Amino acid sequence: MAYLNDNYLKLKAGYLFPEIARRVKAFCDANPDAAKRLIRCGIGDVTEPLPPAVIAAMHKAVDEMAVRETFKGYGPEQGYEWLRHAIAENDFRSRGCDVADDEVFVSDGTKCDTGNILDILGSKNKIAISDPVYPVYVDTNVMAGHTGEANEAGAYAKLVYLPCKPSNGFIPAPPKKHVDLIYLCSPNNPTGAVATREQLEAWVKYALENKAIILFDAAYEAYIQDPALPHSIYEIPGARDCAMEFRSFSKIGGFTGTRCAYTVVPKSLNAQTRTGEFKPLHPLWHRRMTTKFNGVAYVIQRGAEALYSPEGKPQVRALIEHYLGNAKVLRDGAKKAGLKVFGGVNAPYIWVRTPQGVTSWQVFDEILGEANVVITPGSGFGSKGEGYFRISAFNSRANAEEVARRLQELKW
Amino acid sequence: MAYLNDNYLKLKAGYLFPEIARRVKAFCDANPDAAKRLIRCGIGDVTEPLPPAVIAAMHKAVDEMAVRETFKGYGPEQGYEWLRHAIAENDFRSRGCDVADDEVFVSDGTKCDTGNILDILGSKNKIAISDPVYPVYVDTNVMAGHTGEANEAGAYAKLVYLPCKPSNGFIPAPPKKHVDLIYLCSPNNPTGAVATREQLEAWVKYALENKAIILFDAAYEAYIQDPALPHSIYEIPGARDCAMEFRSFSKIGGFTGTRCAYTVVPKSLNAQTRTGEFKPLHPLWHRRMTTKFNGVAYVIQRGAEALYSPEGKPQVRALIEHYLGNAKVLRDGAKKAGLKVFGGVNAPYIWVRTPQGVTSWQVFDEILGEANVVITPGSGFGSKGEGYFRISAFNSRANAEEVARRLQELKW
Repeated sequence: MAYLNDNYLKLKAGYLFPEIARRVKAFCDANPDAAKRLIRCGIGDVTEPLPPAVIAAMHKAVDEMAVRETFKGYGPEQGYEWLRHAIAENDFRSRGCDVADDEVFVSDGTKCDTGNILDILGSKNKIAISDPVYPVYVDTNVMAGHTGEANEAGAYAKLVYLPCKPSNGFIPAPPKKHVDLIYLCSPNNPTGAVATREQLEAWVKYALENKAIILFDAAYEAYIQDPALPHSIYEIPGARDCAMEFRSFSKIGGFTGTRCAYTVVPKSLNAQTRTGEFKPLHPLWHRRMTTKFNGVAYVIQRGAEALYSPEGKPQVRALIEHYLGNAKVLRDGAKKAGLKVFGGVNAPYIWVRTPQGVTSWQVFDEILGEANVVITPGSGFGSKGEGYFRISAFNSRANAEEVARRLQELKW
Repeated sequence: MAYLNDNYLKLKAGYLFPEIARRVKAFCDANPDAAKRLIRCGIGDVTEPLPPAVIAAMHKAVDEMAVRETFKGYGPEQGYEWLRHAIAENDFRSRGCDVADDEVFVSDGTKCDTGNILDILGSKNKIAISDPVYPVYVDTNVMAGHTGEANEAGAYAKLVYLPCKPSNGFIPAPPKKHVDLIYLCSPNNPTGAVATREQLEAWVKYALENKAIILFDAAYEAYIQDPALPHSIYEIPGARDCAMEFRSFSKIGGFTGTRCAYTVVPKSLNAQTRTGEFKPLHPLWHRRMTTKFNGVAYVIQRGAEALYSPEGKPQVRALIEHYLGNAKVLRDGAKKAGLKVFGGVNAPYIWVRTPQGVTSWQVFDEILGEANVVITPGSGFGSKGEGYFRISAFNSRANAEEVARRLQELKW
């Protein structure tokens, strides 16, 4: 009589994006003409092709796979040394952050990594998450049995929710009470807010004092233009003793359909056993990755490496500038439409207040039905997301301009 | 005071293959001349290039990623419909097995899937594994907390070990006692044994009677040449109600460094909740994959699809015939060397008895030191693997012939 994992039964209805897909499909089926002018600014999926340097590197790698002498079988599960080196050197050491090559673990996605990291962490941790938040942080904790049941607002018992609102710039301060694990995402998905150095310093101080661990999701760091804002948690002294960092090539190199990311686990990061002994997490994550993962495809890793090449770097910059240009167009459009707007300056997401008395899903249906634009309802990211919606800047410039125009035509 | 997952501390020293790599490196560093003639028949890694149909499909897909109109962002997490369809049609329905397209979940590896499947299964299951066995089945259960500590022979408390030996043809019969989950691998890694129809029928009968679930690993099914032997558990009536099946393109299409595999979860497969209610596992695995995974790269899925094309099929057959030809050469060589040999007929692995009184690791060191050939010590697969070693047929023909020759030169 095989048992299933009952924790899955606590999960509330579909994951946000499948639910959006369902509503969009129903609308398009019922309104074929409107469907033709549909513009998607919902799911944060890139639209621009892979940079030419990546394309060239992948073609070259495919050719290597065609010849016995250069064919590649199993690679190291944690990634090829040349890619780990390129990452550590370019993303960290060149910015003054102390990260060794072998503290970088290459993977197939930050979504995967932020879920899988729970494998090596205990079941008794008190977990803090922002509200609103990327739903994967919550759902993977529910699946792992780290929560109780959800209440009517969708909040799960046992999780500590940290409200993000205009008054704290959508970046929560450390709580008064003790927590063990803290998910932080900066630049933030969904709010587009970016943590300042002082805010991250406060979190590192809290984590060191509480022997807590920060799970720092920096998937959007390349969108930071303001030189005063930190790109990595490791820019903060002490972070090597209390933080992991997750990064992805998805939004930087257009890799959403190509799949490559990485996680940094410093060797100085410890957690305690049930008996209170502190041990490093690096060997546990290494064991997890070598046992439950088999590395990213060679062809894909060569593509990712090319993002750091002399040809690749300006191509990445051009991609980022393109999407940030869209963000400006969308911000301006939403403002002109009379909406209150946040984010979208050092981030590819614009976080918009719904008109007074209108819920997030009502706005979703309204913008879909009237403007034929897909946005993401803020309540899908948590109860404190109610009354907001997210516009993604991942689109062509023409589409961004058209969405900005249509938003101004809406009657609220 | 963040907690780690204490179950990881129960894991015995390095995973088998890293330990082999360590010994080989130490030997090569100390013996640079011998290192030059080293032949690796240890880890089961393919050596022949990707089939031309795959290379062509991947180049075409890379070109699509270079152009906005054909660029692909996020794909469906469970795999593109065209690949799921090709799999269900070619690997199952054309053989009379009832598997729907949407019961196929495309992933980046069977190693990953056989570990990740535990996410959706409960913690109270009684788990049966063969001995010897692919170490990942055991280690992932240790990590998930489904076992007690290991004893001196490396056997973990709470697991039910099913001995595989010459007298049962290395395929265990169902146990007398009740178990909930059963890992079966056929053709078997490491023994090269293949389950007969009658043996699988006995297991399906047992699983149905016990409401148990069979986790059927068929990663090597393409090596079956004997038409009487089943390729899929779904060739056995009733299996849709009691079995999942794992398959991989690694050993079939040369994908060990390219990463694509799949798992079949029939919609009729149920497991019970803590309160004894039976629910389908298909939606749980779907939820797991959409929440903790983001799909296999588009370029890679197009490569996998090409294995089923009119050009790809004969190229796959040629690869299989090549490796099976090696297996014959190696079997014959080991026999001529006076060794007792199993497997290697419908499987790419040869399972060899060590000479009387010699342990598996002693043979490993002996063959490495004297013949400069890397094999895999049987004891690395479990206590009943002691007294055996595995030779992998994944190599060039010239290397297979050279290994056969060198084995005959050894003085036992």
